[in-house]
Amino acid sequence: MKPTIAISIGDLNGIGIQIALQSHDKIKKLCNPIYCINNKMLKKASKLLDMEVPKDFETFKTKGDFEIKPGQVSKKSGKFAYESFIDAINLTKNNEAQAVVTLPINKESWNKANILYKGHTEVLRDYFAKNAIMMLGCKKMFVALFTEHCALKKVPKKINEKDLTEFLCDFYKSVKASYIQVLGLNPHASDNGVLGDEEVEIFKAIKSANKLLDKEIFKGPVVPDTAFSKANRKTCKYFVCMYHDQGLAPLKALYFDESINVSLNLPIIRTSVDHGTAFDIAYKSANVNKKSYINAVKEAIELINARK
Amino acid sequence: MKPTIAISIGDLNGIGIQIALQSHDKIKKLCNPIYCINNKMLKKASKLLDMEVPKDFETFKTKGDFEIKPGQVSKKSGKFAYESFIDAINLTKNNEAQAVVTLPINKESWNKANILYKGHTEVLRDYFAKNAIMMLGCKKMFVALFTEHCALKKVPKKINEKDLTEFLCDFYKSVKASYIQVLGLNPHASDNGVLGDEEVEIFKAIKSANKLLDKEIFKGPVVPDTAFSKANRKTCKYFVCMYHDQGLAPLKALYFDESINVSLNLPIIRTSVDHGTAFDIAYKSANVNKKSYINAVKEAIELINARK
Repeated sequence: MKPTIAISIGDLNGIGIQIALQSHDKIKKLCNPIYCINNKMLKKASKLLDMEVPKDFETFKTKGDFEIKPGQVSKKSGKFAYESFIDAINLTKNNEAQAVVTLPINKESWNKANILYKGHTEVLRDYFAKNAIMMLGCKKMFVALFTEHCALKKVPKKINEKDLTEFLCDFYKSVKASYIQVLGLNPHASDNGVLGDEEVEIFKAIKSANKLLDKEIFKGPVVPDTAFSKANRKTCKYFVCMYHDQGLAPLKALYFDESINVSLNLPIIRTSVDHGTAFDIAYKSANVNKKSYINAVKEAIELINARK
Repeated sequence: MKPTIAISIGDLNGIGIQIALQSHDKIKKLCNPIYCINNKMLKKASKLLDMEVPKDFETFKTKGDFEIKPGQVSKKSGKFAYESFIDAINLTKNNEAQAVVTLPINKESWNKANILYKGHTEVLRDYFAKNAIMMLGCKKMFVALFTEHCALKKVPKKINEKDLTEFLCDFYKSVKASYIQVLGLNPHASDNGVLGDEEVEIFKAIKSANKLLDKEIFKGPVVPDTAFSKANRKTCKYFVCMYHDQGLAPLKALYFDESINVSLNLPIIRTSVDHGTAFDIAYKSANVNKKSYINAVKEAIELINARK
């Protein structure tokens, strides 16, 4: 049986709704999507886009009624995007859907609507009171971030055996990969302590995690600058990165268009597109890139199946 | 007229000499190479490789006579590699050649021979008492490193307006590019100071450098994780990176095989392959990857022409 997926519709002044409408036939073959948008707003958007609404486009009546203003930061649109996300979470929490897939929201619009989260992941952490793990990537390669939105100077102090061991075990339980590389922090992974010493903690965490899991899952600390070379990527698909740009700069250099964002270590499954609302092209372009969204749906289904 | 280039032959127990012999016909069309190796050692190597020495293979008599031991760390081979490099530098300094191109040396062999430099760049800094700039890349993209072999925790403190302004001006004078992006240090280039504050210094340095040069050459601080996306790479070829892995991880993810290493801000021009001695395949493989070496020669010629 096809799984049911709750689609958080994102900011209606952005490209999300166009992506959802144009991808529906493809998505419908993979799962039963429930779109968190009410029919009135759906009609307004489809009219503006000059598109028909597919007959089997099932909606969940997210509350709200306002004028769509393509490409504009707006309090009402921000509030609606948030409500849509909360509806999608609730549907999934209540087992009416098996996963949430999110279309992009606009942070400024959230701010205007007095929603003081930085993004979806923060809402999820708060909602479930659990430490979500942020993983980004695509079929070819995924990076999990041990630290995320953190000033670079604060990163080295955060690396310690205890926290990293917990992170590694949580991450393994979420993805169940048989082989995961853990990157060092310093150039050349410190060249045996010549360039920094954080690799000692990383090494201990890898050892502890493998011992706790009773399997040789994790390897490292791997030299960061060659970790993502073609040759090494052939040997490994999952990488644990010590900081934001260590993972995201190589990922976006290689696979920007097709990458997605996955929240792990939560009671529910949530995947997301890895791009923004693209206000500059909203309701203007006949075609928008749908790769990231379709990949997000596919990954959600894989994660659903892995949990079975 | 074709320029003359002094080739530092690298560690004779490694793959350098095979690369030089197999690339000679191609290189000879671009420049007049002078190989810093004596005829006796050249014959030993070519015999071991079962290769003929091309008739127009001009050598400079670097002193030394020892048995080649493929793939082995060796004091004698280390010493010879160093002498070859010094000969190549001297030839160029004395205007008998217009650039040095280096084949790979082995650090352990240098160590055994009591040559206590970490690599070629350090020798050059010492020899010329000048602060060489390390730039790596290929035709499609180059990254210059503001800090190099430095523990990550020490990087933030090194970022200050004065030093970075000097670096930017020196870098511009070396490459004469009309547009260069300077990366931020923190995730999202700090999101306006929310994630770190080093971008303030970077911003000031960019402004100062542009003012000193009286041109809008430098732009930034650029968000590091999207700097190397396909779309942005279409707009820019030269990137200044704040630390080793910020530039090298994306570069090696994209262009490992064809990348080279260039020493800028020195009285002489020096380019190099971006790989090691590959002891595991030395004198064993009919074919070795010559892209990096050929690109290093081509870039040396471009730099010679740019200085004219």
